[in-house]
Parts: sequence; structure tokens; C-alpha cells
Amino acid sequence: MSELPVIRLRPKSKPQAIRHGFPWVFADEAVLDRRTRNIPAGGFAVLEDAERRPLGLVTVNPGSKIVARVMDPDAGARIDDAWLRARIGRALAMRQRLYDQPFYRLAHAEADGLPGLVIDRFGDAAVIQPNAAWADAMADRIADALAEVAGVGTVILNGQGRARGLEGLDERMEVLRGIAPEAPVEVAMNGAIYLADLLGGQKTGLFYDQRPNHAFAQRLAMGARVLDVFSHVGGFGLAALAAGADHATCVDGSAAALELAAGGARAMGAGARLAVMRSDAFEALEELATGDRRFDLVICDPPAFAPSKQALEAGLRAYERVAKLAAPLVAPGGYLGLCSCSHAADLTAFRNASARGIGRGGRRGVLIHSGQAGPDHPTLPQLAETGYLKALFFRLDG
Amino acid sequence: MSELPVIRLRPKSKPQAIRHGFPWVFADEAVLDRRTRNIPAGGFAVLEDAERRPLGLVTVNPGSKIVARVMDPDAGARIDDAWLRARIGRALAMRQRLYDQPFYRLAHAEADGLPGLVIDRFGDAAVIQPNAAWADAMADRIADALAEVAGVGTVILNGQGRARGLEGLDERMEVLRGIAPEAPVEVAMNGAIYLADLLGGQKTGLFYDQRPNHAFAQRLAMGARVLDVFSHVGGFGLAALAAGADHATCVDGSAAALELAAGGARAMGAGARLAVMRSDAFEALEELATGDRRFDLVICDPPAFAPSKQALEAGLRAYERVAKLAAPLVAPGGYLGLCSCSHAADLTAFRNASARGIGRGGRRGVLIHSGQAGPDHPTLPQLAETGYLKALFFRLDG
Repeated sequence: MSELPVIRLRPKSKPQAIRHGFPWVFADEAVLDRRTRNIPAGGFAVLEDAERRPLGLVTVNPGSKIVARVMDPDAGARIDDAWLRARIGRALAMRQRLYDQPFYRLAHAEADGLPGLVIDRFGDAAVIQPNAAWADAMADRIADALAEVAGVGTVILNGQGRARGLEGLDERMEVLRGIAPEAPVEVAMNGAIYLADLLGGQKTGLFYDQRPNHAFAQRLAMGARVLDVFSHVGGFGLAALAAGADHATCVDGSAAALELAAGGARAMGAGARLAVMRSDAFEALEELATGDRRFDLVICDPPAFAPSKQALEAGLRAYERVAKLAAPLVAPGGYLGLCSCSHAADLTAFRNASARGIGRGGRRGVLIHSGQAGPDHPTLPQLAETGYLKALFFRLDG
Repeated sequence: MSELPVIRLRPKSKPQAIRHGFPWVFADEAVLDRRTRNIPAGGFAVLEDAERRPLGLVTVNPGSKIVARVMDPDAGARIDDAWLRARIGRALAMRQRLYDQPFYRLAHAEADGLPGLVIDRFGDAAVIQPNAAWADAMADRIADALAEVAGVGTVILNGQGRARGLEGLDERMEVLRGIAPEAPVEVAMNGAIYLADLLGGQKTGLFYDQRPNHAFAQRLAMGARVLDVFSHVGGFGLAALAAGADHATCVDGSAAALELAAGGARAMGAGARLAVMRSDAFEALEELATGDRRFDLVICDPPAFAPSKQALEAGLRAYERVAKLAAPLVAPGGYLGLCSCSHAADLTAFRNASARGIGRGGRRGVLIHSGQAGPDHPTLPQLAETGYLKALFFRLDG
């Protein structure tokens, strides 16, 4: 018999949701007695319904709003090295089917059966983000399993970001296995070369989630004059250059990100076709509007303006403003790509804000594509809001 | 000055929506006097707001729920051959940028500035569907403009389908220009070869809208055993074969469609890897469930089960049933693609029905991709419901 503590759902909570794959138990849904309150953050327990029927094995964090996360529907499972290898192996098999080269999000938390754990792979190196207490506590064993299953030599722990705070985890940044790369790593994606700074970059140094949207932009890029606003390390700009854009201008507030963008362009042999502009994006858009330069393809990929429900209204106004400022810079008959990575702004709200902004910028547009994160970012159907990334492509009037 | 009749919005209707690009005036929004009531279906008029300010040039159909459709925001525009060539030319320019080969939806009605008019291109031939009265009346001039701008030799008018009835148009099927192809036309798409029967097929003989979803399925297809249910002319099955599937089985109720699927496979040199099953899809799924055969990739692309709001509940139950019957046929760790082309079922409703069906089929799934129609099917942001096609890809549990 299991010696694990038991955590029980309250009579009025919904065990059916858990049985159908919903992965979380919120604090007000569970009976927390003295023993379960003393489970250390990241410890394991058996979850039962109010009638004491087992629902699965969970990891517990008494200090989090999400008091339990389902690790395995089998209440008798053991979260050991073999379990970790099996979950990582299953996630890896899907990525190997989807991608020719070993550059992808290898594990996307709950949807890959690894609650709160994100793993990005950059060839021989991997960056793990343990955003749940169990994964933070087991980081070394996760690194071992990862090295064994995926064959990576270097594993870096990136313990930054908002999600960790909600779990009561401190910031960490460590090299768990191998040697940290001294120079930025070259990442091949959609025929472009990106430079990812695995230790110093935002999140894990590169955003794999935009890959299919970069690829869509490439279909519009041949011969085009391209403007990539909020470019980070050149995501859309370098993709456009790889697809035959005449030239691309990357605008970002971070000198370090723009240096990586320029380095990527040079590595592609396209350094002469890339210009960078270090500037606040709104100021850059306003300044460009005063001149005569127009672009065949403009992409705006801002940070999350609506990271929470409280920030939704202000966030939507900011998205509208981006669209309003960007639309006049698009040449007649050209294309405008607008992205949002805000959980709180759903597709309809973001599309409406974007269309309103285009109209207020004096243009009309038709929507030709609504993109999202790639399939290395799977979602649980029960957590539809985790489909956070939206990329809308409009053709503007002539 | 224009000699066109004037149609005026009622004081309480919303001229702003029209100014921002909404393309339709419903019967209860317009003042219809004796003169405007006498405009023949498909005639043109100037639309004004209640303060007599012009809003644009519209086509009028006093017998339709949509009493006016905006042809041009310029109230002084003339809908003549030059206008038709300009609109078709603009639509063509976008498709030529997006596609290497001349096989695509060339015009997608309102979103291409051609209200109610659909044009599909199959190399040297085009099929037009004039689903609004103006386009039906001007079909010959549209065919001329099309031949001139796109250089097609054959233009076929396919006047069938539900949309025409709403406009009070009769069924028609005519060859307007050139000679109708005697044999089905070979259509190259995603490396597969499809056979399209331009005169006898459903709608225009081939569904271009699924192209990006076929392409996504291809990424899962290498070496796979594939089941394509509601296959029509083999959309997903032939795409999978082109991407290296071990074998594909196409199930459809139409012998003619299956014959075209088999012909496509032979044209690809893959005839030996395709099996066809003529059957009601539900019966075929139930029968397959009694046997041992399992598939690495199962796709179900049924006809619209929820074509109207009235049919929504029954439609969602049918989608759930498809998912429930298909899920058990997917091998452990395999993939399930579920499609809906129902306007009335939005993405959330369809996703929930699909997830429920998978669960009732005894499986769990994570959503790896939500696809839609390709960019040759643009939409007006103001008519979000025209984004009717949904294709959900799930990875099922091992």
C-alpha cells in the first residue's frame, strides 16, 4: 500500500473534471488536515474524491493557489527516475516526429504530463524552467533523465519569471550538467539562424512558440521591405530575410537582443540586409510615421500587455494603439502581422482591438491568417486558456 | 452625378459599422421606398446614412435578408469591367505571393471585395460560384475579366448550394468560357495529386480550405497507418501518402469520390498504399472498432453537422459521437484529427465536444494544433463567423 499522505476533495468540488483530465486542485476545493498541511511544497500525495475513491497521484504545494497538481492518474505511480524518463521520452518522441532538427520546446508542462515543468532544447543543450515546487526540488534528477533520454550534454536551470513567485520559489540560475556555452548558441529555425543566449536571455533565450507564425510571415516576404517591431533577437525579421526579403529593420528596446539579431543575420550571410533600431517601440512607430518610408510587411510582437484579467482593458488599448500606429506604415496592398502573448486577451478580444486599431490608423484590412503557438506547445483541452499566443495577419487596402 | 437609386439606413441602425468595413445591410436596417423596392435583384444603389451622407455603392436584393451588400466604399464607383479586373487582380496578386502553383481559391467573396462571389482556380480552369444576385447577373462579364486577368482558358459556372436559395437564385451549371475538361483535372497540393471533377463534384470539386490542415497532418504521417474518414476525394489520405505514410484507408459514402481518391493515388504512384471503403462513416467506425486494426493517425472531416444555429445542439452531439467512435481506433501515442466546417459551432464548442467524445471513447488527449482555412480564404474581421473551418489535432495517450 502507498505510504503517501492523502488529500481529499471537498464534497461539492468536481471529481469528474479531474477524472476527465483537468490537472489542478485549487485550495478551496480540497480538505487540508494537519498532515496534508505539513506536506512540504513539492511533496506527493494521493488525491481522493469525497467518497475516498482515488483520483490520482498529485504533487502538493500548500502555499500555492493550486494546492495540488495531478502527476499521474494512477494513484499508485511512483515519481522516480523511470517515471521521469518515460514522460520525457514520450514528449521527445512527438518532437522528433514533428521537427527535423533538435531545436524545440521539448516539454510544455501539464500538457506533456510534467506539471509546471518547461524544457527547451537547443541542440546539445537544454534549458529547464521548473515552475512548480516538485520540479524545482527534483531538478537534478530531471537533468539526469533529460541527459539520458535526449542525449543533451548541457542542462541549464533557468529559475526566473512570474510563475515561480506564485509557487513560492526563489530565483535561481544554474548550470546543472555540462558546461554553459560561452557564446550564444546558433539555433536553426525556418531556414534562419538565431543566436540564443541561454544564460542571459529573456526566459530561455529564444521563443520557439512563434515558429509557425515566422513561417507564415515568410510566405509574404519575398522581395519585401520588412519592419519587425518588438523584434527581440530578430524572430520575424531574420525569418523574412531567410525567405528572400529585400531588407528588414528590427526595432527593440534591448541593445543585447538587437546585437543577437545582427549576429544572426551575419551568420546567415544577410548582415547587409538587416538594420536595427534601438528604441521604445511606440516612439519608433511614431517617428517612422513622420517620414516617407513604407514597408510591404510590418510585424509587431509586443510583450504581454494583458498578463492578467485586471490588466485586460489597458492591455487591449495598448494592442489597439500598436495596430493604429503600425497600419499607416504598411505600403498599399501590404501585410500587417499583430501578435499577442497575453493569456487574458482571448482571440476575439485581440482581433477586435487589432481591427479597431487598423481602422483608427486610417486603413482597412482583411484577416488572412490567425496563427498560434506551434505543436511543441501542446495544451490540455481542459485548459484552453493556455493557448495564449495569437498572431493575426492582415492584408491592408491598396 | 450618379443616377443610381438611393437606399438609406434607418436612423437607429449603425452607419459606423459600414464605415468600418461591415459589408451587409439587413432588411430591417434600411428604409425601402417604392423606388428601391423596384430595384431588380442584383442592381446597384448608393447607400446613405439617415443624415443622407453617402456610405458607399451597394448591390441590392430586395428579396434577401441581406438587402444590400457593399461593393465599394466609394459611392461614385462604377461596377464595370475595369472594376472587376481590378478586384480580381488584387485577389490574384495575393494568391500568387502565397502559392507556387496556380491552384487556389482565387476570390473569397466579401473578404476579396467581391460580395457573394467565390472563384476557385484549377490551373488553366476556374470555377465561379455566384452566390449573390449581382454576380449571377454579371457572370459572363466576370468570366471575361477572369480570363483576361488570370489567363485561364476555361470558366465554369457552378450555381448550386444553399447560399443561392437565400438570394432567390435558381440552380445553374454552365461552361461560360472554353471547353469543359472531359476527365477530372489533376490538382497538385502539398505534394499530393488530387482529381477534381469540376462539373460533377461537390461544390467546386475540391476543398482548398483544408490545405494547411492536410499539411499539418503530413508532419505526423511518416511511416504511419492512416485512416481518413469522410474522405471525399482523399484530402487527408493522399496528403499522408505523399508524406510517406505506410498506407491509408479512405472511408466515404460516395463511390464517385472514392474513385477519384483512388485515381489520385495511382497518379502519385501510390495506388498500392491506398485502400478505400465505401460506407456510412459511423457504421465504418463502429465496424472497425470490433476488429484489431489500429491506426497511427485518424482524421475525421465530416460534412457540416451544425449548418445553422437551430442545428447546433444536434450537431455538437454528432461531433462528439465522431470523436468517441474514432478515438479507440488510434494506436497508443497516436494522433487524432477532428474537423468541423460548421459556421454555428465555434472553436470552443467544437473543442469541448471533441474532448468530451475522446473521453467517452476511453482515451485522453492533448491538443497539439488548431487549424483553420488557408489564407486563400480570407475573412473580414467584422465577419468573424466566416472563419468556419476548424481542424483540431490531438495526441492521444499511450
